[in-house]
Amino acid sequence: MSGKLYVIGLGPGNAAQVTPEARTAIAEASVFFGYGPYVERLELRPDQTRHISDNREELARARAALEMAEAGRTVAVVSGGDAGVFAMAAAICEAIDYGPDTWRNLDIAIVPGLTAMLAVAARVGAPLGHDFCAISLSNNLKPWEVIEARLKAAAAAGFVIALYNPISRARPWQLGSALDLLRTILPAETPLIFGRAVGRPDERCAVVSLAEADADLADMATCIIIGSPETKLIERPGRTPLVYSPRSSRKDAT
Amino acid sequence: MSGKLYVIGLGPGNAAQVTPEARTAIAEASVFFGYGPYVERLELRPDQTRHISDNREELARARAALEMAEAGRTVAVVSGGDAGVFAMAAAICEAIDYGPDTWRNLDIAIVPGLTAMLAVAARVGAPLGHDFCAISLSNNLKPWEVIEARLKAAAAAGFVIALYNPISRARPWQLGSALDLLRTILPAETPLIFGRAVGRPDERCAVVSLAEADADLADMATCIIIGSPETKLIERPGRTPLVYSPRSSRKDAT
Repeated sequence: MSGKLYVIGLGPGNAAQVTPEARTAIAEASVFFGYGPYVERLELRPDQTRHISDNREELARARAALEMAEAGRTVAVVSGGDAGVFAMAAAICEAIDYGPDTWRNLDIAIVPGLTAMLAVAARVGAPLGHDFCAISLSNNLKPWEVIEARLKAAAAAGFVIALYNPISRARPWQLGSALDLLRTILPAETPLIFGRAVGRPDERCAVVSLAEADADLADMATCIIIGSPETKLIERPGRTPLVYSPRSSRKDAT
Repeated sequence: MSGKLYVIGLGPGNAAQVTPEARTAIAEASVFFGYGPYVERLELRPDQTRHISDNREELARARAALEMAEAGRTVAVVSGGDAGVFAMAAAICEAIDYGPDTWRNLDIAIVPGLTAMLAVAARVGAPLGHDFCAISLSNNLKPWEVIEARLKAAAAAGFVIALYNPISRARPWQLGSALDLLRTILPAETPLIFGRAVGRPDERCAVVSLAEADADLADMATCIIIGSPETKLIERPGRTPLVYSPRSSRKDAT
């Protein structure tokens, strides 16, 4: 008799942003898999066990979780943000795709969560108020040339760009290089938002122009939103400015 | 003494996907503004009042809500999905941008919510597992040529595409035209997901190839996800197939 596999998005880190659906799934599961900082957010019961692994071991974690579900357990794999955005749901699918046929019969439920760019955007206004894209800046799993081509295509076509995985110890130069590339396409005054750990006690959110933007403003917990040429800034006395991308576009096609 | 304005995302429609943060804001507000179907989801107390307006009156609604917050009330403007994705947060910012200076002093809190594409993606696997974009197909507020240029740029650069506002009585031909355009760029077997009212009792979710895709599969409550050339389908006996976009890309830059 096989069990069940939940793949759960925990949201950006604020407990008030975890959906009731995710809480219910957490209560039902008996075994938890995930990257340490995400699993540590859970308040588990003594009968619930945890398997923590590094964030570069996604496929091994997925396989271990699938094996345990096949053995009859109710298993949860947890991600920060949304489980489907640069997170564990794709690793689970990949493991099934290349795994034993029996894994295709497993009962799998993916529980969506608030992804970081939505929480960052809400802090400053509505920078994602019109067409936008999300790009992972990690070249661990794709060539840097693909990332450059996508940045160019998105910026030139007028998309707002949310950057995930902007920087890490092993990837120190990529964000600076991406900002340099964008400076050749977008106006110097384009607003950027560096949203770090939004909703958590150590939250830090900065709005800067593309001209001022510096890779040092980001760390592993940062999601960066880069405005389109239509994104606007509203100065407010004594308050942080609002940033929004208007609902209407009057620009010609680029 | 001025009040407060909440701009709240209610998620795709399933009550279990409304965040605790949104529920708290709803409990605090005394006046509610929104499009009928969203306001009707709220279980309001007798002391809470509602102002319902049509979905094409976003700016007028934003101004009315801001006026009431300025008059000292605690006001909530509600959107389905996320308030910042093709929704009311941008209209509120626009109203402030062009409104009286006093509106820049108002206390405004934007409460993010699960946007439709995340809920649709979770139903079928991880189609948003790698770089993706969101495009509103409504040409009420931008020229059709801009939409075509963005569809072309996104598809050619390898983004998965989530289409919002795909069709309505007033916009009957745009989706068919967009699908025809995408057929000139993407392989015929590219998987598409038509996710309608996901999480609600009348949910309907279909996975079809780009060759088979037909605008009749969509209505106003549908969010469509169009795979990239790397998006894969996993057939499962007796279950709906899984669709995912692999975490790694081996394609050359396009």
